[in-house]
Amino acid sequence: MTRRPSLAELGLNTGKKARLYRILHRHGLGNGTAGFLPYDQGLEHGPRDFVANPASSDPRYIVKLAVEGGFNGIAIQIGLAEKFYWDYAGEVPLVLKLNGKTEIPSDAHALSPVHASVAEAVRLGADAVGYTLYVGTPAQEQDFAQFRTVREEAQRLGMPLIVWAYPRGEAVDAKGGKDSFYAVDYAARTASELGADIVKVNFPHPDKRTGVPSAYDREFTPQQAIDAVVRSANRTLVLISGGEKAGDASSSVCRTSRPVSSVPTSMMIGITCAACKVSWKTADRASCAPPS
Amino acid sequence: MTRRPSLAELGLNTGKKARLYRILHRHGLGNGTAGFLPYDQGLEHGPRDFVANPASSDPRYIVKLAVEGGFNGIAIQIGLAEKFYWDYAGEVPLVLKLNGKTEIPSDAHALSPVHASVAEAVRLGADAVGYTLYVGTPAQEQDFAQFRTVREEAQRLGMPLIVWAYPRGEAVDAKGGKDSFYAVDYAARTASELGADIVKVNFPHPDKRTGVPSAYDREFTPQQAIDAVVRSANRTLVLISGGEKAGDASSSVCRTSRPVSSVPTSMMIGITCAACKVSWKTADRASCAPPS
Amino acid sequence: MTRRPSLAELGLNTGKKARLYRILHRHGLGNGTAGFLPYDQGLEHGPRDFVANPASSDPRYIVKLAVEGGFNGIAIQIGLAEKFYWDYAGEVPLVLKLNGKTEIPSDAHALSPVHASVAEAVRLGADAVGYTLYVGTPAQEQDFAQFRTVREEAQRLGMPLIVWAYPRGEAVDAKGGKDSFYAVDYAARTASELGADIVKVNFPHPDKRTGVPSAYDREFTPQQAIDAVVRSANRTLVLISGGEKAGDASSSVCRTSRPVSSVPTSMMIGITCAACKVSWKTADRASCAPPS
Amino acid sequence: MTRRPSLAELGLNTGKKARLYRILHRHGLGNGTAGFLPYDQGLEHGPRDFVANPASSDPRYIVKLAVEGGFNGIAIQIGLAEKFYWDYAGEVPLVLKLNGKTEIPSDAHALSPVHASVAEAVRLGADAVGYTLYVGTPAQEQDFAQFRTVREEAQRLGMPLIVWAYPRGEAVDAKGGKDSFYAVDYAARTASELGADIVKVNFPHPDKRTGVPSAYDREFTPQQAIDAVVRSANRTLVLISGGEKAGDASSSVCRTSRPVSSVPTSMMIGITCAACKVSWKTADRASCAPPS
Amino acid sequence: MTRRPSLAELGLNTGKKARLYRILHRHGLGNGTAGFLPYDQGLEHGPRDFVANPASSDPRYIVKLAVEGGFNGIAIQIGLAEKFYWDYAGEVPLVLKLNGKTEIPSDAHALSPVHASVAEAVRLGADAVGYTLYVGTPAQEQDFAQFRTVREEAQRLGMPLIVWAYPRGEAVDAKGGKDSFYAVDYAARTASELGADIVKVNFPHPDKRTGVPSAYDREFTPQQAIDAVVRSANRTLVLISGGEKAGDASSSVCRTSRPVSSVPTSMMIGITCAACKVSWKTADRASCAPPS
Repeated sequence: MTRRPSLAELGLNTGKKARLYRILHRHGLGNGTAGFLPYDQGLEHGPRDFVANPASSDPRYIVKLAVEGGFNGIAIQIGLAEKFYWDYAGEVPLVLKLNGKTEIPSDAHALSPVHASVAEAVRLGADAVGYTLYVGTPAQEQDFAQFRTVREEAQRLGMPLIVWAYPRGEAVDAKGGKDSFYAVDYAARTASELGADIVKVNFPHPDKRTGVPSAYDREFTPQQAIDAVVRSANRTLVLISGGEKAGDASSSVCRTSRPVSSVPTSMMIGITCAACKVSWKTADRASCAPPS
Repeated sequence: MTRRPSLAELGLNTGKKARLYRILHRHGLGNGTAGFLPYDQGLEHGPRDFVANPASSDPRYIVKLAVEGGFNGIAIQIGLAEKFYWDYAGEVPLVLKLNGKTEIPSDAHALSPVHASVAEAVRLGADAVGYTLYVGTPAQEQDFAQFRTVREEAQRLGMPLIVWAYPRGEAVDAKGGKDSFYAVDYAARTASELGADIVKVNFPHPDKRTGVPSAYDREFTPQQAIDAVVRSANRTLVLISGGEKAGDASSSVCRTSRPVSSVPTSMMIGITCAACKVSWKTADRASCAPPS
Repeated sequence: MTRRPSLAELGLNTGKKARLYRILHRHGLGNGTAGFLPYDQGLEHGPRDFVANPASSDPRYIVKLAVEGGFNGIAIQIGLAEKFYWDYAGEVPLVLKLNGKTEIPSDAHALSPVHASVAEAVRLGADAVGYTLYVGTPAQEQDFAQFRTVREEAQRLGMPLIVWAYPRGEAVDAKGGKDSFYAVDYAARTASELGADIVKVNFPHPDKRTGVPSAYDREFTPQQAIDAVVRSANRTLVLISGGEKAGDASSSVCRTSRPVSSVPTSMMIGITCAACKVSWKTADRASCAPPS
Repeated sequence: MTRRPSLAELGLNTGKKARLYRILHRHGLGNGTAGFLPYDQGLEHGPRDFVANPASSDPRYIVKLAVEGGFNGIAIQIGLAEKFYWDYAGEVPLVLKLNGKTEIPSDAHALSPVHASVAEAVRLGADAVGYTLYVGTPAQEQDFAQFRTVREEAQRLGMPLIVWAYPRGEAVDAKGGKDSFYAVDYAARTASELGADIVKVNFPHPDKRTGVPSAYDREFTPQQAIDAVVRSANRTLVLISGGEKAGDASSSVCRTSRPVSSVPTSMMIGITCAACKVSWKTADRASCAPPS
Repeated sequence: MTRRPSLAELGLNTGKKARLYRILHRHGLGNGTAGFLPYDQGLEHGPRDFVANPASSDPRYIVKLAVEGGFNGIAIQIGLAEKFYWDYAGEVPLVLKLNGKTEIPSDAHALSPVHASVAEAVRLGADAVGYTLYVGTPAQEQDFAQFRTVREEAQRLGMPLIVWAYPRGEAVDAKGGKDSFYAVDYAARTASELGADIVKVNFPHPDKRTGVPSAYDREFTPQQAIDAVVRSANRTLVLISGGEKAGDASSSVCRTSRPVSSVPTSMMIGITCAACKVSWKTADRASCAPPS
């Protein structure tokens, strides 16, 4: 299992290094392991996620949760950042999500359109920007093209770039699906080759093998799969959503507070607090904190 | 029921706050509740709306109506603004509508193309700009992309941005339709996440449940639905068209002059005077005024 | 019947007013009624229009005809303007047509691509620019988008903008056709809302009712139809092609020289000399002059 | 038969006139009739044209041929111009071809993408630029749009613009085909209306009448057809490929060295040496020269 | 067999010549023959290539291999260049690959989107840039258009441009396939005409004749085919992948270390070390070196 690289080894320019240092070492645990709180369901899924617990609909409640829970960052869209980050500006790092979409139209040619710029992230005092890349989509030409403009602007302004690398689209569905080891591995690598500083992936499922290339069509343990994904990402720091792995949604203990033994945490810098989605609903806020 | 937020809480920059203050507190009732008079049917529906009452075809007649009726703003396209706003410039705030389309071609991939800029709104002395966002359309990539340019320019020039958030397109039709609680709730949230200052929606219909996600597939009162929509919009001020709710089109009393009890007016800033569409036809202008 | 508005009432900036004044009051009859000579058949139809009378193929012949016939302007494409306007520059106003297309490919998704700029019109000493807008086409997104750039540049440079507002495309065909009262009325209004200074339409045919909205599906006289179109255009000056109405193509008298009693000329500023198309073929030039 | 216009009559700006004068009067015969040597088969057809005579694959061989044969210009793509024009720079005028394509994909929606700019032509010392316009293609919107940028840049930099006006696309095929009198006539006119300085067309075939408009559906002699094409082009100089007409491909005499009596050479400025394509294959170089 | 041209004959500007000289004469054998190590499989194929030999997943391992193996350059994407080239910056020339794609979606309309600029290559100290051109793809319009921007920027910044000229797309499949002599010959020529400084092609297969044009539908020896390809490329230097020819993948000797007698090496400047793909898997690094 490879060690987690230091920031000095990642080829970062000064601005990127300064901001990542702030995120990783001045917030949360402060030891390089980090937990981020993403809050874009209102756009990506619509407010249906909030119906059960109406309070979770209030961005102020969530930003406050990120501050009090000691998260290393909160990832939100420009509209919420404009309206709600001011209240706690500086208390928790802002990851401005630069693209997003609704789930209403078909996902067959998935593309997440950009609706904010890195310059706006700078204006809002953000410490990183986020981009959702739909690896494998038939719309990859547009996706790569708009990603390029984001990456170049992030490079120019010294802004760390976090890529949500999600396999998506009809071609992915035909080759093992979006959660297969093959797809997740490819997604991590693509983000790395295209210039992500941090890549967020979902847990790879080595058992999803229908239609995958032969190299993936044999037995792998989850540990082998996650090791490969982290290797594919090489010097791109890896974030893996913990929520998908944790079994019992009704558990009163926030899952990200427990060590996830199967993950090479020495390599990864953090775990996105997917469990918090549960917490928002159950109002079990106390249990939501990054791994200690 | 949440209280209506003050302008100071909305994350507005100075120009946006100044202009919204002018609209909400120096015109109409002056108490933060507002009524707008939209006049874009000539483009959106074509002049068929004017056939019954030819006088309603004359923009001068309508702008005058907005002034005399004590409206907080009149929303028109660039062509009419250039030709008719001069006559009453400053007497009633101008909301320059930046996009629009005819209803002739199919709505399956609905997109409302931009045909004016925020800078032109500034040139014309407008106090806000309007944008129609077709939430859920298969053309959402282009929609979000052009919305972004509008939002950024509005931010830069301190111009309040009112979003007409209308569910539209073949995917919406398949998931409950454009008036379902689900669709309207999603539309309000989308506008908020993407950066609207004010969002205009139609009344949500919780009884339209064919094809909606499970969270919406149960009983809701209209009051519960409207409360949820207002929560989803959070710090984005909400405008709801009153006309759709009012039953009797032949009523001689302008419907917006009556309190709409089912709507959390404490949260909303206004009611668009859809009833005026009737008034234009019946020339029953006297009854058209914002709620007192 | 409404009176024709004076130039002072149209919301024109100084450059637009100066150029329109020159066109309307320093050329032709000089009384605000105008006749324009359009000469773009070579592109729009191809040279098939010239086969019967080869002389009509020569742009020099046509520009001379416009000068000698006392027209208020000649509308040609950039290629002919570059090559032929110099000969008579200043003697007759130039309306530079900024877009155009061949008729060879299908018209189902009609769009007339822009191939010259307003700045070039300025360079050539033009007094107006022309744009063909295909109202109702499935390509309306591109059409509105490119129209916007033309309108903004025309506004910035003080150049009057004449819109050829032609209903076109498969959706128009299904709703009464391109000559229906409905379609022509909608086209005039669209041009007005989008910012035309002058709109050219064809004669509306109230008897074409197959597929039109209910408001148009009853009896109208031609006079009522033309009145409605002029009202829909409001402060946008109206040009109507006379040629389509005139019955006998073999008539030796140029039809535009006779008063067209059914048209509210008090409102319109001119009649395009469609009859000249005949004259070019019959070489009956003497009879081609604007109405006296 | 019209006389050939002098350069002074063509509406050229100073740079265009200077460069055209150089091409027409300082090279070749120097009397205003010109022969150009186009060499873009390697891209348009692929190297299959070179298989029979491998020497014809070498651009240096061809440029030398143009110099020694006394041609008025050589038309090549940017890649060959960069690599081979230096050797003989100034000895023969360079016509930089700005667009081109392979013949591999379908021609149904033909479009020739631009891959060089007029500014690069200036950098390379070219005396003209060339653009292939596919008249009648369903892709005419993109074609006209990119043509516009070329034309405007050529105007700004005083660079003569030669248009290869080729009817192409599925709509052309349905209306008489790409060589019909109708199609060629329309192509010449389109180039003229859009702003070409010189237009190159293929020989019109008046006998190809299946599907053409009625005006073309009767008997024309080749002479009548070519006369009409030249009239349609008006002040746009005409180039006609001689090769297509010349019968016997195995003839040892270069066909362009013989007067082509059926062509109104008094109007045209030149004949492209299509026969040279034969010469390249037969190495019969000596016979390749412009008409004397 | 033609001699290999000297750098002085290639029409290079100063910057291009300086950088190519550095690549060809200051690295590797230093005699003008060169070997490049491409490492973009992680993006183009996904990490499936690394499953057998996980060490090959590590870019640092590969860059080091390029340095120690005496290669003339390493070709990688921007993400890996940012993160890994610093370690050995200057020790081996960097060829920044400017476009790339995943293999997940269909290749029928193949296009490799650009995701980095020549200016970034300059910033990273690269000595050349690489572009994959899919010759024959139905998407050739977009391909040529984006290639143009790369070529122009490379010209402006004096950066050598290496084109991976790969026949691809449904039309290619129907005309002999991507490895046919016809397709490879056409690809080499296209790159040359469009402005490549160096073109990389795969070995042509003269026996693949189904659907090729008649000129290619006869017997050719591999030597004749490779000679023709080199001629078609003319002054564009040729790189041919050796790996495809070498038979036995399990051979312990790196194939590029053996002279490939069938190739006109006097003309070509190098052989890409495709064999190294094997070496990465077998860790047989010692055998990987350019031909001596």
